[in-house]
Amino acid sequence: MKTLLVIGIGAGNPDYITIQAIKALNRCDVVFLMDKGPSKDSLIDLRRQLCERYITERPYRFVEAQTPERQRGDVDYQASVQALNRDKQQVFERLINQELAEGQTGAFLAWGDPALYDSTLRILQQILASGAAHFEYQVIPGITSVQALAAQHKVPLNRIGRSLEITTGRRLAAGQGGDADTQVVMLDAEDSYRQLRSQDLDIYWGAYLGTADEILISGRLDDVADEIRRVRLEARQAHGWIMDTYLLRKPED
Amino acid sequence: MKTLLVIGIGAGNPDYITIQAIKALNRCDVVFLMDKGPSKDSLIDLRRQLCERYITERPYRFVEAQTPERQRGDVDYQASVQALNRDKQQVFERLINQELAEGQTGAFLAWGDPALYDSTLRILQQILASGAAHFEYQVIPGITSVQALAAQHKVPLNRIGRSLEITTGRRLAAGQGGDADTQVVMLDAEDSYRQLRSQDLDIYWGAYLGTADEILISGRLDDVADEIRRVRLEARQAHGWIMDTYLLRKPED
Ligand SMILES: C[S@@+](CC[C@H](N)C(=O)[O-])C[C@H]1O[C@@H](n2cnc3c(N)ncnc32)[C@H](O)[C@@H]1O
Ligand SMILES: C[S@@+](CC[C@H](N)C(=O)[O-])C[C@H]1O[C@@H](n2cnc3c(N)ncnc32)[C@H](O)[C@@H]1O
Repeated sequence: MKTLLVIGIGAGNPDYITIQAIKALNRCDVVFLMDKGPSKDSLIDLRRQLCERYITERPYRFVEAQTPERQRGDVDYQASVQALNRDKQQVFERLINQELAEGQTGAFLAWGDPALYDSTLRILQQILASGAAHFEYQVIPGITSVQALAAQHKVPLNRIGRSLEITTGRRLAAGQGGDADTQVVMLDAEDSYRQLRSQDLDIYWGAYLGTADEILISGRLDDVADEIRRVRLEARQAHGWIMDTYLLRKPED
Repeated sequence: MKTLLVIGIGAGNPDYITIQAIKALNRCDVVFLMDKGPSKDSLIDLRRQLCERYITERPYRFVEAQTPERQRGDVDYQASVQALNRDKQQVFERLINQELAEGQTGAFLAWGDPALYDSTLRILQQILASGAAHFEYQVIPGITSVQALAAQHKVPLNRIGRSLEITTGRRLAAGQGGDADTQVVMLDAEDSYRQLRSQDLDIYWGAYLGTADEILISGRLDDVADEIRRVRLEARQAHGWIMDTYLLRKPED
């Protein structure tokens, strides 16, 4: 049997890594490094550094692979993600079948937690269901960007006895925000928080959370929306890419 | 100045602890151990063990304190939590003012992540606002029971582009469940999932996640609801307490 470990490495700060993840890394023969567009260099670098720092118990090797890119622009989002995942599935199948011998263990390193807006689990399950490769697998949780956001702003994610919704910028912009007391928005390329102005909300916004480039802005949404847009645009231009997340809720009475 | 660190230690598996948490523990002069009802012994023990295993760089001491209990039974939930938090606030004030000298660093260890259904942050902020004690503080995220649940069942928390609601058993039972694609339910003492039978949902249930006593049950809710109730009751009787969480969603088309 082959074994795959899907290891959450945390969403930014290398110190977010858990002891469980470090132990998992130390069981690996192969660490797969999936290459990801513009943010690629720094993300791949962080993965490499984590392995180099923490894998101390046995020899292992890196296998790098190009991840296919999602088709952007005027296409159906869900369909484009599904098409992307089919392409990724072929890449993963090849890696598992050609780069891992029977009895060996390989790791996929997921940014943040593998269970939150990440396709690795879904792809592995589809490969197993299709019979195109055979393996056992385990999942190791990691600190998400949602938790990094809350910790860095020192805000609770929920109010006493209330609920919390984690959603996408796309859903927020489409008015599919839901009625939870608190909303945390990820994957927002379009400054969708702007559409919720005049609703008397507080916002806690963070970019590059947990990294040396972290930026935090918080306040009444109507007061800080323009500042967030400006800072976000400048940061994206300076870095060539951005990762940001924010929390919205009505101020405490 | 005094410094307080609110450190998430993960929700069950001692290996959930992060390097960031370990580094934070190693900055402490005092670790506060708050005592918590029936699950007390094993939880306090885990906290003690984590400190003994990972604090290696300098001397520190434990300070134990009784946490007041929430009034149960026929009382308003929110009011009873607020009253509890006022009582806790006094205990925390005393600890900070009497057990920590100027220039020292103290830690509160939060189960899971301090931002998720945990009152420590709120209490510290109320103390600061009241002026009853003075300190700086930092928040260190930890692996939540939500992530432990997803990892152990190997399920993504969200579907592609869809949202996720984290809520309480109390809200679910009151029909305040919201319309997110996936619901994760915490703090459910009443088997509230039973009220969602006949809605064609899948459930992923877990108790004592990440510990040696972990129990996992999953399946179509209508098929496994009775089994979960039975197993949950037996486990609670055997241990004297239970911690359980579950995820509900419509099966994939
Ligand atoms: C594909 S999702 C992956 C989420 C990841 N699995 C997690 O647990 O955080 C990518 C989104 O996560 C958020 N994100 C990830 N890392 C972040 C960081 N360091 N700072 C701010 N947002 C981040 C952004 O909203 C980004 O669009
Ligand atoms: C007061 S909340 C604290 C949550 C914690 N801060 C976290 O991040 O998971 C307690 C609830 O968390 C859930 N929980 C905590 N630890 C758990 C575990 N090991 N297994 C299952 N559920 C757990 C249960 O729903 C329990 O009622």
